[in-house]
Amino acid sequence: MERITDPADPRLDDVRDLKNTDNSKRYVFGEGPLVAGRVIDSRFPLRCVVGFEKKLDTFFADRAEQGLAPIDAPVYVVTRELLAEVAGYDMHRGLIAVADRAEETSISEMLNARTLIVLEGVGDHENIGAIFRNAAGMDVDGVLLGAGTADPLYRRSVRVSMGHVLRLPFAHLDGTSTTWQRSLDQLREQGFRLVSLTPDSRAVHLAEALVDDTGHPYKKVALLVGGEGPGLTEHAMRATDVRARIPMAAGTDSLNVATSAAIAFYERQRSLR
Amino acid sequence: MERITDPADPRLDDVRDLKNTDNSKRYVFGEGPLVAGRVIDSRFPLRCVVGFEKKLDTFFADRAEQGLAPIDAPVYVVTRELLAEVAGYDMHRGLIAVADRAEETSISEMLNARTLIVLEGVGDHENIGAIFRNAAGMDVDGVLLGAGTADPLYRRSVRVSMGHVLRLPFAHLDGTSTTWQRSLDQLREQGFRLVSLTPDSRAVHLAEALVDDTGHPYKKVALLVGGEGPGLTEHAMRATDVRARIPMAAGTDSLNVATSAAIAFYERQRSLR
Repeated sequence: MERITDPADPRLDDVRDLKNTDNSKRYVFGEGPLVAGRVIDSRFPLRCVVGFEKKLDTFFADRAEQGLAPIDAPVYVVTRELLAEVAGYDMHRGLIAVADRAEETSISEMLNARTLIVLEGVGDHENIGAIFRNAAGMDVDGVLLGAGTADPLYRRSVRVSMGHVLRLPFAHLDGTSTTWQRSLDQLREQGFRLVSLTPDSRAVHLAEALVDDTGHPYKKVALLVGGEGPGLTEHAMRATDVRARIPMAAGTDSLNVATSAAIAFYERQRSLR
Repeated sequence: MERITDPADPRLDDVRDLKNTDNSKRYVFGEGPLVAGRVIDSRFPLRCVVGFEKKLDTFFADRAEQGLAPIDAPVYVVTRELLAEVAGYDMHRGLIAVADRAEETSISEMLNARTLIVLEGVGDHENIGAIFRNAAGMDVDGVLLGAGTADPLYRRSVRVSMGHVLRLPFAHLDGTSTTWQRSLDQLREQGFRLVSLTPDSRAVHLAEALVDDTGHPYKKVALLVGGEGPGLTEHAMRATDVRARIPMAAGTDSLNVATSAAIAFYERQRSLR
């Protein structure tokens, strides 16, 4: 543990001015004990941990008690005031772990999955984070990102996901907004049933979309959800096997995309019972 | 429409300094065309509408086109700068409707419901708002508020609910944190099946908790969910008929309370198909 008292100290450059997107998108940040621990235990190469003395003491004592190996990166002890000055905001959670961004999982590694979620145009970092959190919680094996989808490794996404963006495999599908859908053929060739989620009342009930004519669940399912507002493009829906809906009461709005996806994860898990 | 150019004009007192909780909890506020419209069309007595000229013109033209009656309250036209100065923040949605708080629905009126949600200790205004939005969307008939639950009519709750806090009946259950659960007996006497949601792996699967031994859905169901973090108190769970779980993958966190509730609403609706 190295104590730092000078805000200009270059060892703190990793956590400098994090409200500036250029800085915050350079690395992966985990704030607070839970998410910092998940950064440390992830495949992302740890750069440093910065925090207040008491918080760090408790954090590393807890880790040692759980039998986790000591970390192989510098730990910088700072005061709350100093960290607020350097980072540009009050980090009340008391510690932050910083890691390098690493390569994504390759798509071919994800083709053994039983359940995947495919996102199109999900531009909101909170929704991305919530989708990863819920996917991890309900046995989804990975996330594929089509066009127009926000960065899962952004600080806010990491936080809302409770660090699950660092644990759950994800990969970007190649192509532009009108060509990425071709990658879906690759999933179909690997035996995935492709299921679009839509509020369209002509679509089949979600529960029916996940089982075959004999009521058995499909072995491999890729669920597709679209962005806040527009939902999936017609182009994307046409590339799938079935359009599925969560029934909505008259005069109400469609569900938030992360909520729709959570319900689809639940139904998928339920179909496999 | 009355144009106002003086920030000190007392006609703007309803929207003054809204970052101050004392002011914002005095009335009910609907920001933006969608939610403002829902305030206007609600049982809450409209006080005024304040907005930018163009936004108001479009808003009232749209309402007239939909055949909605003209409103019976003053409309104040202001500039964006003036409204920002008075309200204390930039209201980019361009208009705001203000209504008086009104009496809650009486509990006895809600006992004819088929599905109710009961909240305990849900202290976060965003979660409250999301629960109302999802409840309205998935055919839940009303919301009962146990101890420790945040105000559904708070500005943030109204916004996140997309105005559904103004449409869906809700009522507070009497009592303290250890006595409010007695009100649950009243629900049981009215034939409600009381179902606690818990991440406890010993609980029964949600799908099983909502149907009787012969696989038929209960006619009347009250779903209970607890606050962020602690969940339902043991005291509340003991007052219910069954504890239900949404299965979670090992090493993950329990779902957010609004997400859990949304899944329960979905399953309830599914059981009634």
